[in-house]
Parts: sequence; structure tokens; C-alpha cells
Amino acid sequence: MPEFLYGHWAVIEAMRSGRRALEALIIHERAEKRGAVGEVVGMAEDFGLPIQRVQRRILDDLANNGNHQGLALRVGPYPYCDLEDILTLAAQRGEKPFILLLDLLKDPQNVGSLIRVSDAVGVHGIVIQERRSVAVTPAVVNASSGAVEHVNVAQVSNLVNAMKLLKQEDIWLVGLDVGPNIPPLDKTDLNMALGLVMGSEGEGLRRLVRDTCDLLLTLPMRGEVGSLNVATAGAIALYRAWSARGWEGWAHA
Amino acid sequence: MPEFLYGHWAVIEAMRSGRRALEALIIHERAEKRGAVGEVVGMAEDFGLPIQRVQRRILDDLANNGNHQGLALRVGPYPYCDLEDILTLAAQRGEKPFILLLDLLKDPQNVGSLIRVSDAVGVHGIVIQERRSVAVTPAVVNASSGAVEHVNVAQVSNLVNAMKLLKQEDIWLVGLDVGPNIPPLDKTDLNMALGLVMGSEGEGLRRLVRDTCDLLLTLPMRGEVGSLNVATAGAIALYRAWSARGWEGWAHA
Repeated sequence: MPEFLYGHWAVIEAMRSGRRALEALIIHERAEKRGAVGEVVGMAEDFGLPIQRVQRRILDDLANNGNHQGLALRVGPYPYCDLEDILTLAAQRGEKPFILLLDLLKDPQNVGSLIRVSDAVGVHGIVIQERRSVAVTPAVVNASSGAVEHVNVAQVSNLVNAMKLLKQEDIWLVGLDVGPNIPPLDKTDLNMALGLVMGSEGEGLRRLVRDTCDLLLTLPMRGEVGSLNVATAGAIALYRAWSARGWEGWAHA
Repeated sequence: MPEFLYGHWAVIEAMRSGRRALEALIIHERAEKRGAVGEVVGMAEDFGLPIQRVQRRILDDLANNGNHQGLALRVGPYPYCDLEDILTLAAQRGEKPFILLLDLLKDPQNVGSLIRVSDAVGVHGIVIQERRSVAVTPAVVNASSGAVEHVNVAQVSNLVNAMKLLKQEDIWLVGLDVGPNIPPLDKTDLNMALGLVMGSEGEGLRRLVRDTCDLLLTLPMRGEVGSLNVATAGAIALYRAWSARGWEGWAHA
């Protein structure tokens, strides 16, 4: 089944990464070849892709009414990786594994946003469960600004089993949780082989997932509203962990 | 001019905070008084507010097609504060000032998200410029999950002048910027009288705003996409600063 990626960055990053089969570029019938569209059309021509011009409502359909910016790309399926590939990438870079595990997240916007931050901090891979969770859909690609086309995402049939496998590889699983008796994020030096586990919107970590973590940490909160979106909380935790690694891999470190 | 706040949390927090004139609750004509709607109707009854039932398309209009969840609240204008009020709150709490300054942000979603995080970390106030910037519109209230109804927001006619006034109060202005020769966020102990200055989407800090900062810091990035949404970057910086303050004001600290 072909998929239709949409939006400027999703389309560009899919072409740049070269990990998917590229089938055709679809643009608005009256789009002019300049600016962002010109850049995308130029790339598509370099790849020898067919370029189809269609009416706006067809683009709206292909993008499921997402913000397509007049661009869609017909591509092959997303290339999921294995847990093994994630560990291999860490070893190749000579870095302690740095992994993000998502427990049944439902909102493509949150998952895309977390993947974009994961790319920015050099996470070696993201682990999601196959069922009852968002997969890497075109909406996620769009929400990640195309970052997911470059990072490793492993889709596992059972998150708890994947966690157990990672523990056998001496990876510490740190769950981000909410509660009165949980130490704050900065109480532990996160410069370790790390799997950061985030719970779903509203529900948090499932009991068995929580129990499988080696350690729970919390993001302190004060104020009147006292809750944060999971994508915001995850971004803060990912940056905290990368900072503990001394911004390893940063060009200006 | 009355405003119409919409969405569950926006409506609840406006009623809870009691800072605006409350005029009427508007709900969907067939809404049942249970769950979230029941809670809101109960609060409105306690306040003696008129409750109007309307068709969905009227709610859609009142909410500018935002996600109203069947609820809107007619209220008086947003109660902006002065810079003085922000400093007074810090003094009352016995805390070093902790202020967020936004330079011409355009996206209500970003501004709302930053205000929600500001509430969570106990910022004493947020400063925005009156012109060429998002104000506290109902879309911002919604995006902040209602948090903006509890925090101080000062709308100033000129951001640079406001920065100069804050400097006279011995507040250090730290601009979050992008560039190769800027030290990373953790290179400075942010446990000080702090004004964190965030630039706008795409444009970053204006030159004069940047030049008025006492210090620039950057959020390191690696990876292929190498950019973060301003709301994400701001959340990370705000949490870094609060962490430097030892999670001051956290109930479990």
C-alpha cells in the first residue's frame, strides 16, 4: 500500500533520507515552481520522479485534510527497524544507548513532536507498541517535521517484553511518572545507558510498564493548572538526559 | 466587548480564577449535565450565571471553529497586569524574579503552550508586546488549558523599553538564541533574578532585543532536522531555570 506524505518538511526529509521507495510527487495544479515548491520539484526531478498536478480537493483527501501546503509524496511503507538496529547505532557511534519508549500514545501530534526532539538530542531509537498506539502515519511524519524519516523507530508487539530485552542489555529504564513520592528528574545522573519511558496522554504509564521500569522520576510542577502535555514533558526529560551526557555529538560542544 | 472563551479547561479555569467578569455560560442545546459538562454547569449555577443552550454552529462561530467541546463562556476582557505587579508577586513570594518575555510570537498555540509551562514552573509573569504579537485571545486561553487565567501577563507598548526597565531592577535578561558561538543553556547558573527572552517563530530575536539581553544562551541540537518549535525550546529553558532554583515552591521539594 502506498502512503501519501504531505507538507513541505515531510516531503523534503523523505526525499533527503532516501530510506523509503519514492513513487511520485503530487502538487497543486496551479503551483508555481518557486520558493518551497520549487525546491521540492527540483529534488523530485533529480530523483526522476513523476510529478502529478491535481486539484486542491485531491490533495486535501490525500492528506486527510492535514496541512499539506500544496505538496504530497507517494512513498513506500515506513521502514521500521528492530531493537537490534537501535543498539547497533549506539555502538557505531561509541555512545551509551539512549532510547525513548512510548507507552500507547494516541495523538500523532504528540508522537511527531517527541520524535522531532529525539532527533535533535541524538536518540538512537524510539520504541512503540504495534497495537493500541499511534504508528508512524503520514500525520506523525508531518508533526515530526520529517525528522522521523531519519531516526530509528522500532515497532514491537509487546512493550513490556521489549523492555525486558533492553534490561538484559544493561539498559536502565527510567519511567516518567506523576506522584507525590517520586524523586524529581534531576535527582539521578541520566548519563547512563538509558531507556526513557513515557506514558500515554491522560492515562500515564500502564501498571506493568511502570513495574518493569528500574526507576521512576517525576517532573515537578507548581501553579494552578499543574499538568503538562506529554510532548512537552518528554522534551524536557530528553534534554535533561542529553545535557547529562555533556551534549555529546553537538557540533559546537 | 465581551469575549467568548471556549473548551472545557479554559471555561473552568476562568471561573476558578475569578479574575474576569463572568457573564453567561453557553452550552450545546442537547448537552447533558454530566461529566465535564455537568461540572461546568454546576460551577456556573453556583455563580448564578445565566445558562444558554444553542445550536452547534453557534458554538462553532463563537469559538472561531476552535475545539470548544460544547462549551463557551461569555466573559469580560483579559485582565492584563503591569510590570510592577510581576515584581510585586516575586517579592510577596520571597523569590528572585522569574519572568518570561516573548518577542513578537505569532502562533496562539505556541503562546498558550508557553504560558501553561510558565504556570507549571511558577513564573511571576509573562511580558508580551502590544503590537505585532499575539495577545491573550480565547485561542491562547484554550491553548494554555486555562493557565493564563491564573498567571500575570503584562502587555507593553515596546518590549525593548520594558527590558530596560527590568534591567534597572537588577534582572538579568537571558535571550535564547541560535548560533555557533553561543554557550549552551547549562553553562550559566540560572538561579538569579531572571528574564528569559524568546524570539518569534522562524525569525528568532529581533536585533535590538538581542542586543538588549545581558547574555545569550543556546539550546544545543544535533540530528538531521536540527530545529525545535519555540514552545518546545521555551519549555526546556523554563524547566532548566526552575531546576536551577531547586524546584522552589514545589509541594514535594
